[in-house]
Formats: sequence, C-alpha cells, structure tokens
Amino acid sequence: MAGSSFGTIFKLTTFGESHGIAIGGILDGVPSNFELDINEIQLELDRRKPGQSAIVTQRKESDKIQFLSGIFEGKTTGAPIGFTIHNEDQKSTDYDHIKDTFRPSHADYTYEKKYGHRDYRGGGRSSARETASRVVAGAIAKQILVKQNIHIQAYVDQVGSIKINDSDLNSLDYSVIELNPVRCPIPSKAIEMEELIKQVRKEGDTIGGCIRCEIKGVPVGLGEPVFDRLNAELGKAMLSINAAKGFEYGSGFSGVEMRGSKHNDEFLENGKTKTNFSGGIQGGISNGMPIYFRVAFKPVATIIQEQNTIDKYHNSEKIVGKGRHDPCVVPRAVPIVESMAAIVILDYLLKFNATLLK
Amino acid sequence: MAGSSFGTIFKLTTFGESHGIAIGGILDGVPSNFELDINEIQLELDRRKPGQSAIVTQRKESDKIQFLSGIFEGKTTGAPIGFTIHNEDQKSTDYDHIKDTFRPSHADYTYEKKYGHRDYRGGGRSSARETASRVVAGAIAKQILVKQNIHIQAYVDQVGSIKINDSDLNSLDYSVIELNPVRCPIPSKAIEMEELIKQVRKEGDTIGGCIRCEIKGVPVGLGEPVFDRLNAELGKAMLSINAAKGFEYGSGFSGVEMRGSKHNDEFLENGKTKTNFSGGIQGGISNGMPIYFRVAFKPVATIIQEQNTIDKYHNSEKIVGKGRHDPCVVPRAVPIVESMAAIVILDYLLKFNATLLK
Amino acid sequence: MAGSSFGTIFKLTTFGESHGIAIGGILDGVPSNFELDINEIQLELDRRKPGQSAIVTQRKESDKIQFLSGIFEGKTTGAPIGFTIHNEDQKSTDYDHIKDTFRPSHADYTYEKKYGHRDYRGGGRSSARETASRVVAGAIAKQILVKQNIHIQAYVDQVGSIKINDSDLNSLDYSVIELNPVRCPIPSKAIEMEELIKQVRKEGDTIGGCIRCEIKGVPVGLGEPVFDRLNAELGKAMLSINAAKGFEYGSGFSGVEMRGSKHNDEFLENGKTKTNFSGGIQGGISNGMPIYFRVAFKPVATIIQEQNTIDKYHNSEKIVGKGRHDPCVVPRAVPIVESMAAIVILDYLLKFNATLLK
Amino acid sequence: MAGSSFGTIFKLTTFGESHGIAIGGILDGVPSNFELDINEIQLELDRRKPGQSAIVTQRKESDKIQFLSGIFEGKTTGAPIGFTIHNEDQKSTDYDHIKDTFRPSHADYTYEKKYGHRDYRGGGRSSARETASRVVAGAIAKQILVKQNIHIQAYVDQVGSIKINDSDLNSLDYSVIELNPVRCPIPSKAIEMEELIKQVRKEGDTIGGCIRCEIKGVPVGLGEPVFDRLNAELGKAMLSINAAKGFEYGSGFSGVEMRGSKHNDEFLENGKTKTNFSGGIQGGISNGMPIYFRVAFKPVATIIQEQNTIDKYHNSEKIVGKGRHDPCVVPRAVPIVESMAAIVILDYLLKFNATLLK
Repeated sequence: MAGSSFGTIFKLTTFGESHGIAIGGILDGVPSNFELDINEIQLELDRRKPGQSAIVTQRKESDKIQFLSGIFEGKTTGAPIGFTIHNEDQKSTDYDHIKDTFRPSHADYTYEKKYGHRDYRGGGRSSARETASRVVAGAIAKQILVKQNIHIQAYVDQVGSIKINDSDLNSLDYSVIELNPVRCPIPSKAIEMEELIKQVRKEGDTIGGCIRCEIKGVPVGLGEPVFDRLNAELGKAMLSINAAKGFEYGSGFSGVEMRGSKHNDEFLENGKTKTNFSGGIQGGISNGMPIYFRVAFKPVATIIQEQNTIDKYHNSEKIVGKGRHDPCVVPRAVPIVESMAAIVILDYLLKFNATLLK
Repeated sequence: MAGSSFGTIFKLTTFGESHGIAIGGILDGVPSNFELDINEIQLELDRRKPGQSAIVTQRKESDKIQFLSGIFEGKTTGAPIGFTIHNEDQKSTDYDHIKDTFRPSHADYTYEKKYGHRDYRGGGRSSARETASRVVAGAIAKQILVKQNIHIQAYVDQVGSIKINDSDLNSLDYSVIELNPVRCPIPSKAIEMEELIKQVRKEGDTIGGCIRCEIKGVPVGLGEPVFDRLNAELGKAMLSINAAKGFEYGSGFSGVEMRGSKHNDEFLENGKTKTNFSGGIQGGISNGMPIYFRVAFKPVATIIQEQNTIDKYHNSEKIVGKGRHDPCVVPRAVPIVESMAAIVILDYLLKFNATLLK
Repeated sequence: MAGSSFGTIFKLTTFGESHGIAIGGILDGVPSNFELDINEIQLELDRRKPGQSAIVTQRKESDKIQFLSGIFEGKTTGAPIGFTIHNEDQKSTDYDHIKDTFRPSHADYTYEKKYGHRDYRGGGRSSARETASRVVAGAIAKQILVKQNIHIQAYVDQVGSIKINDSDLNSLDYSVIELNPVRCPIPSKAIEMEELIKQVRKEGDTIGGCIRCEIKGVPVGLGEPVFDRLNAELGKAMLSINAAKGFEYGSGFSGVEMRGSKHNDEFLENGKTKTNFSGGIQGGISNGMPIYFRVAFKPVATIIQEQNTIDKYHNSEKIVGKGRHDPCVVPRAVPIVESMAAIVILDYLLKFNATLLK
Repeated sequence: MAGSSFGTIFKLTTFGESHGIAIGGILDGVPSNFELDINEIQLELDRRKPGQSAIVTQRKESDKIQFLSGIFEGKTTGAPIGFTIHNEDQKSTDYDHIKDTFRPSHADYTYEKKYGHRDYRGGGRSSARETASRVVAGAIAKQILVKQNIHIQAYVDQVGSIKINDSDLNSLDYSVIELNPVRCPIPSKAIEMEELIKQVRKEGDTIGGCIRCEIKGVPVGLGEPVFDRLNAELGKAMLSINAAKGFEYGSGFSGVEMRGSKHNDEFLENGKTKTNFSGGIQGGISNGMPIYFRVAFKPVATIIQEQNTIDKYHNSEKIVGKGRHDPCVVPRAVPIVESMAAIVILDYLLKFNATLLK
C-alpha cells in the first residue's frame, strides 16, 4: 500500500533507490508566489551528502538537485514541485555479496519477504539515500517558515554515551554547530564525539547517537487533537527516518520520574510559562513556547566485521560488510531531522489556517 | 481541521467531551461476518474505567457501552459500528473554578487560544475520558487479531524511578498483571509502585510512569515504507494518548550507547533472530519477531496544591486542583496502549492484505 | 475498507442502518465559535423526512436530531460534533420476505456477496435513511456558508420526461420551491410532475427524476487541481447519493453538441463572464460565477409488482415489493443534494484558506 | 492544498507543466513482483500523443517515458515508480500573447486569481499535457488488471450531434476502434465524425464529444459505501480529466425517464442480470456485470477566431488563439478515460482485498 507520502496540505511524496537512475520527489501543496532560494536548498543537501567530512561515508555523490516543475521565474506557482537527484556513485558490484544474503538488522529480510522481489543494491528503497528528497522538501519548508519567523535547529547531543549535560542546554551557541563535523554545539563535546566515532570506525564498528531539535517562533494553536496532535505527528515524522529508535519531547522519558508539582509549567502574565517541561506542546497543541524533542538513532547496521546470518533459502551464511558506510548516522541526520520537523510544522500551520473563517 | 480519526482501512473516529451527554465513536472498515464478544469489550472498558481500585480516580462512571449499528445477530456486517458511552458522573460544579483560569500543563490555554471557545468542564475534549472510545475500538481489534494468533499485552514497567530491571524482562509472568492495581507483572515491584502512588497522592501530588507493550504473532511484512513504517505509526498512535511524552521501540534510547556489532540481530536458519534489539521491526516492516515498545507518561497535571497561573485575561491567579483525579496515569493507561497498538496492527494487516494479488 | 467518511478538513463520518437502533454521525473539523441554529437543522431534516406529503413514503419517522458533543453554550467548540437520530418506525416484519431473496436493482445482492452477512431489514446500511446524517452535516455547513454569503439552492427540474425548459432557467422564482410537494420552482410544472408521480404510484410503479442545484457567492479560487477539482469532488459527492446515476455541471452533456465559439464564456471587465456554460468552474477552480449542476436519479427500485429474481442459493424466486416506499425519489433528495454541495463547498473554502500565508 | 494525488492504496501523484522541463509522476502502492511490458506502456502513451493523426494537434512531442525507480530486472519491486516525460516542443513564444490576457473558458483566470503567479506557457499546470502521466499509470494498472481478467475499453460514441445509436451498442466490434483516427467502433460513424471534426477545424472552431467506456470481468464486491461507492469514485476520476463536463453510468440521464418496472434488472440463476441498466454497480458495489459509463467533453476552448476578453488588469482585450490545438478532444482522451478507469478499478480491487481475513 502507498506509504511514500507525508503531510496532508503540504505533502511530500518520494521515490528512488540507492543505486537506481535517480531519486526524487513531488512536493505538493506548496504556497504559491513564494520566492525560493535554490542555492540554499543545495546547501541543505550538502549538509546531508556523503563525503563531507572524515567521519562520514566516503561514497561520492554530488547530490545536485534538479527542479522539473512548480517553479516559474524563481517563484513557486502552487503547482507541485517535481525534482530529481541523479545517482552517480553506483558501485553496484559492492553489493553482489548481499544479493541473496540478508545483512543482520538491515531491511534485506523484511523487504524480501514482503515484496518477493527487491533491488538489493545498496539497500535499494530501504537505503537512507531516500532522505535526500526529504531534505529538499524540508529546505523549501524552512524557507517558508523563516518568513513566518519560525526557526528550526537540530544538533547532535549524544554519541554513544557522550552526551551534552542538561545544565548546558540553556546556554548553547548554535553558531558552533556547523563548525564541527559532528554538528554538536559544544566544541569540547564535539571533539570527544569525533574521537569516539573515529575509534569505532577503526574497529570496523558503528555507534548510535541522539539528535535534539528546537523550534522557535511557532504560534499558539498548531495541532489537531485528538489523534493528529502536533507531538504525535512530529513523533511519526522522526520515527520514519532510517535507524530512528525513539522519540521524546519536552521532559520525555526523564519526566516520568518527576512529580507533577515540579513538572507543571506555571503560566506567566505574558502567556509564556516559567518552565517548559511541556516542550512547547500542551494537549497536542503548540502553546507558543519553544518546541523541543530528541530522536534516538541506533548504531549503523553495516559493520566491517564478520557476522552470522542466513541467505534467502534460510541457509547459514557468514557476511562481512563492504561498501562505504557511516560509522555513526547522527552528523548527517541533523538536516533530515530539521527537514521532517519543517514539513510537519508548515503542514500544521496550513491546517491551522484552514480552520479560520472571518 | 479534522483530527479525530485514526487508521486508514480500519478507521476509528471519536467524539465527546468529559462532561457532555456522551462520548463515542464510529469504527469503520471492520472486517465483516466476525462474531463479536460484547462482554469482552465491556471488560476491556472496565480495565480503563475510574474507581476500579484505590489508586485511581474515584470518579464514578459505569462506562456502559451501547452499540448502535454495524452488528447484526451478533456479527459484524462490514458497516460502520457506531457506539456511545453516556457520561454519568458530571459534577460540573467541580470545574467552575477553571472556567476562566488555565490549569498549568493542562490543555486549557491551548484550546482557548486555538478555538476561542471551549467546554471547560473536566477538560472537555482534551480530557482523557475520550480514550474510552479507543478502548472500544481496540477491544474489537484485539478480538479479530487473536483469531489471527496475534496477541498484545501491555503492562506498567516504571512508576517514578521504580522500574523493572532489564534482566527480568525475559521471565515475566503476564498472568500476574491484572492481579494487582498497578498492572505490573512483578508482584514485588507492583507493591513498591503502589506504595509510591499512595504516598504521592497523600502529598496532593502526582507521578509519571512507563508502559511496555509486547505484540506476539505478527507475521513478516507489516509496515509501509518509507513514511508509514510500522514503528512510525505505532509511535504516532502512542504519542496521541493523553500525557504521553515519549516512545521507543526495540533497543530504543538505550540502543544509542551500543556498538553495531552488539546491536545487530543475527539471523537464525528458521528466519528468527538470535537477539531482538530491532524490536521486531526492520526497515519499518515487521520481521516476525515479537514487537515491543515503551511509552513514557508524564505526571498528571492536576495536583491538590496551590499553583501560580493566569486567567483568560492574562491576570495572575492562584489555583488549587479540585475534582477526583489519578495520582498516576499508567495503571489505567495499560488498556489504552493495548488498544492503540491493536488498531495499528489490524490496520497494517489489512494494508498488507491489500497488496496481495494472485 | 473504511468508506463512510467524506471531506478532508471539514469531514463527515456516518453510521447506521435503516432498522437499527439509531443512525448518526460525527462531523469533524467544524470551525469553532460559530453560533448554531439547532431549529434550522431540524427544519432541514424535516425537508427530507418521510411522510411530509402525499407523494412520498408514509413511513413514520420524526427524525429528531440529538447532539452529543462539540456544541457548548450554543456555539461550536471546534471539537467533533457527534449526533444521533433514533429509528422509530421499525416494521421489520415488512422485510422478512427479503431475508434470503435479492430485490432487483437493490443492493441486497452486492452487500450479501461483499460482506457475507448483512442487516437485510429495510436495506440496512444501503438504505437511503443514512442520508439523514448528511442533511445534519449539510445544514451546519449551510449555516456557516451563509455567513460567508454563499447560498445553495436545489430543486427538481425533471420527473420522468416532464422537464423545465432551458429558457425558463434564468427567470425562476426560488420562493416557490418549498410551496409544492415536488420542490419544483415552476408551479405549473410542479402540478404536472405531482400528477405523474401519483399516477405512477397508483400503478405500483416508480419513476426517475433530476435535481438541479445552484450555488451563488462562491469566491474565485476554490478547487485543488489536478485531481481534486471542485467539479470532480462535487461529482463524487452527488454520485455518492443513493439512486444517483449521472452528474453534469455547466453545459454538461448538451455542451457536447456546441461549438467552442459558442460555448466559450467571454470575460467582462468586472471579471464576470457574459455567458456561463462553464458552470462557474474553469480548470477545476471556481471562477466567481454561479456554480450549477444537475444530478440524475433512477426510478426507485422497490415496486409493488411481481418480479423475477433469485434467492441467496441462486434459486429462482418471485418477489413483490412491500413496505412503504417513495414512488419518486427527487422531492426528498433536494435537501440531500444541497447538503452534499454545502459540505463540498465548505471543505474547499477551508482548503483554500489553508494555502494562504501572509 | 495538495490535490495532485489520486487513489488510496494504488496512488498516482503527478507533476509538470506544459512547457516546463518535464512532466511525470510517482506511482505508489504498485503490487510487487509484477513483470511490466514497458513497450506496451509506450504504446498507450502513443495513443494519447499529439501529431498521431490529421485530426489532432500537430504539436510535436515524442512522449518518451523514462522510468527512474520501482522496477528492477523488469519487475516491480513494490517501491514507488518514479517516471518522467521530457517536454520537447516548447514553442513558448506561441504563448507570449496570453501572458497577461485570459483566454475565455480556459483556466488562465482562475489560476491567476488562486495562485497569484502562474506559468502561462501553454496553460502551464492546467494543460491537458499532464494527462500523459495518468496514461503511464493507467497502462501499468491495465497490465495488472488483465492478469486478473479485467478488461477496459473506451471509445468515442459521440462527436457534436453525431452519435452511436443505443441499438448498436450490443453489437460493437472493438477491434475497429484503433483503426480510425476518431476511435469510434462503427466505421461509418467514424467517417462522419472525422468529417465533422475536419469541417470544424477549417472554421477555426472546435466541437465537443462523448466517450463511452466498458469494463468487463470485474468481480462482485468492489466499492466502499456509503461515500466511496465505485460509481462515485469513477465519476470523480472522469470529472478530473480536462474538459470533462458530465458523467453517467448505466442508464444514466436517460434512466430518469424510465419506470422502475422497466429499469429494474432481474436476477438470473447464475447471478447475472437479464438487463443491465444498473451499469454493473448496485448500491455502490460492482455486481459482476459489465460496468459501463459515459463522459461528456466540452468543445476545446482554444479557437482560431477573435474573441473578447480581459487582461489581468481587467481591461478589455481581443484575443485570437495561436498554437497548435485539437479541434476535438475525444480521440486523444480515449486512453485517458481508460487509464483513470484502470486506476480506480485496481485501487478498489486492492481495497477489497484489504478487508478479507481468513
């Protein structure tokens, strides 16, 4: 069943496999008459692309965006924006060894069983390469949101067990984020994380991480209870990203241990709250405070170590990862998290508009 | 914008406020010709209803289900099942004090700002009373799933900082769950949790908790990448429950600290995996192993202590909780978690069927 | 699969069988803070209800609406409006003869084959009784639209071969419509039609008819190409009504015989067009001119004559219609057509709002 | 708001303007492991493409399909099929005269007012060029349906007032259809129609027409009452095609004049009906008889005659059509009608599958 679309009013549909001709998408419901900065979209793609630093995969993809429709004389027309990103570095021979063998904790097995036929090269449709299309849509959404004074910033706050202290969260310098390859806003932590990633890679291993995202400037009122709560849709968006294993917003899992008397956010006369354990969302609706959430990513499944597995005939096999893979997914996942957040927020902003009648 | 529906093929739409005439819903897309056990549905409602034990709210609601359509001679007809649960214990006067005043960390403020007009009595639409309709739908889904050998079981695994040890997760006795008011499968932990809840209530305070849910018997193939992954939809379903602050499946947030070499689930010749850090889902698709996830719930916002807040004119106010409320939400949330899981799984089972052509 | 919902932003979901306990629905996405006139809703139901005149079925249903949620102190809250209409005149014994026998051109056969189990009483879910729920939603939509200066009026323009002349369409007196039982705006035609219906009924037979609907005051811009054109959604809405066999808007089927030079609507300086063969919609988007369309309804399938048919075991049977049925469906279908039109227009008005950003 | 998607389980999303770089689409929810005949898809496109005969536009477009994803080793993978068709014959200068002027009965005015900015070249998004993407999707759907023994055939049954007689409908020779440029199954009528089209073109004028479509082999049970009736969705699909003004199925508008005693379709012991005024659909669900319907298309709006209109500043203007346009749309619309029918039928076949549980 069709599962490659996200959003209701502002809707992204993606296509494409890791080693096919191209990936791409259609972005429908884009507000019209909006002047797009195409360079800025490319820059967002560059934040996600392979080969950008020493701690990510060295696969070579220039990830050049080509727009096919929906933009005329530099401005959106309201018609769907079709776009493609051609696949360049298609060393498909890297993947002959997995043609009939299931890599542990990859999607090889489930795709084979569900669809009966799969493009195994580089993981095919299950590859995180698909997320480049999300970044295109997210970059467009972000440009529109900025004009509404809504700003989204994600960063790495944990790699393995190296984590930003809660006490440092309120004094972060976001301008530092893009200055280090890990995308961590605390330079000293960034160095520790980078060292850990390098160490892990040296061992032919991988490591997990967390991304924290903050959204400022969201007006009161976004969210459609009871099922389409803003937090629920943000959660779905984040959990739809490859390798995501968990989502929490506001106080999240740590809020479980708190008392209500401590956790409750008292209102101030300006409508703001004194604390923000709610994470900017109450009853599934934005309350005007900054929205923040965290996403957990598992260690990348491709490791350069021998593992036991089975082939498609269920015979035991040994497998060793080949190809050029990320030792840790979070540095490149930062723009993906921001993009999915931007798509959700813009979609809900438009949903909110939809209910207003003079 | 319409946000009160959940599911695509098997779809629940709910209505109703805490202190209106009735709550209820429409369950559409129900497989036809299925013999329903109405008593069992009522028993599920009883697991959620107030007044069931000393550690939950003493509000009195018999929560008697009335079915209006879609069932004929005891069997589903494929037509939508309409149902209502009448509200009985409507001490609306309990809520006069919040008519113009926003309770901290409730949805009063956001509903007021979003809609401009709200039924403030008992939280109105934002009340968790709405979840009774979900339990009706979930109970029906569970009956259908059981016939497909799919079994869903949730339980409380954390209250405050009292938590089941990971090492005990594999030897749990599910038959114990309904024997204690906390719904914890380890009797000694259940007693500790119960004591904590009682202590917290005595202080006029509240405490958070976590629910763990396990789904056994799910066939390989459920999930619709790339956006409608099974884990993403489960996450949305759980995060749509009142007071939910986080969701993780498989290794979740703790998987972040693991190496890939440890985290990867090796395949065995029977298609099962040796470990199950994947939580039964790979690439967004069920892999035939048990699915498990956890949901974090914040402490209930209503406390019997004085708090600072504002009224609708943004003047400072003091407020003290009245009414009869839960000191901890998780014991009653267990059937809600199971219900939302059942709705998701059945919807995805039907989605999976949809793609099969001879 | 769930098929009982209509609309995206303003969404109606219905439930209920002809002879069950009640029919009803949930109307979600209703703009908040809107003062509803409940009496007016009841009056719209009365326009549809049985027994209102000598030329419709004499089944007795008071069709009293009961609202269960979503309205507080007389105004909408933005929460879903749940409502029920109880079935009163349930002479189910009238239907014992069709328990196992398929009435020709009814839905008995298709429901039996599709669902394997059906509530045969009065047609069950396939009965036009369900449309009462649509009238409730439509009446609410109409009240909201009137405040936006959008007015919807339907009327009968054909019964059998008695038809309003095209030349009379521009000088119709709408105030006459509700003054005759046929709901035809030309009194002399109304009398002819009424006579025909009475004659047909006397013969134990039935006859078809057409309804024309005009919508004035729709702003330019409603419609979402390329698939969700305003005319396409209006067509779907009308074709979802029981017994509808055709839909045409603007010049419709007669436009086929015209030349482009005649059919094209020249623009005037005020943005209006000189003619309106387009029917107020160009490229799937409203152009500010009146929208008009026609819906064809077949003769009612229940006739008081002996017919050949088969039973569920595919044995030949004779059947004679019992029960109290309409000899012609169009007089009572007028408010249904208006209601579906109102739901579509309001939904598209909200969709249009959704795309506007400052 | 996003309106460029059609279908639920089998879903097409399209993009592209008449004179942009390319048009194309994403087809999601395609059953996997199906061997596609790419040549056959191209042949279907060729039936729609310009320049194929003397009575259609002489615009030159080779309409070569390029598939970018979703197909591996000749078979579908279940992943979305992305595809593009590049625009070649972009004589954009043909359209400078309509940059600021609204062509009567085109979508220029409504797009300008709705979106505030439009690609005016060749009608941009409102051009029927977009329907080539529908033909790609339809060709794929048809291949899948044929394997299920479902066959779809459309043909021209009316041009202007030249029409196939009802009495000839049962003895049509479908093999004739593709042998004449009009696509009419009666050679003598085809010649008359062709002459009329040539005459009309000589006058710089255009003419309307009707397409009839028949679908054989549909199993009993397709359709999702009460709103998503099979006929309602077919109607929406057809009315979403450029220039469509009306839809009728079964007896349609002519059924209005019939008595129930004549119109009712008696059941035979094999479950078939003696007549088929129902058009293969009863109560919104297919009954196993052939489904047939008709679609009315208006005369093409572009004429080579001077017309009065206004510019974007609402000043009076004269306009004369340029460019190379069709004098009558129906010959090229035949594969479009078939394609939309195929998409609907396959989507409903999958929806029907979705509800079946062992």
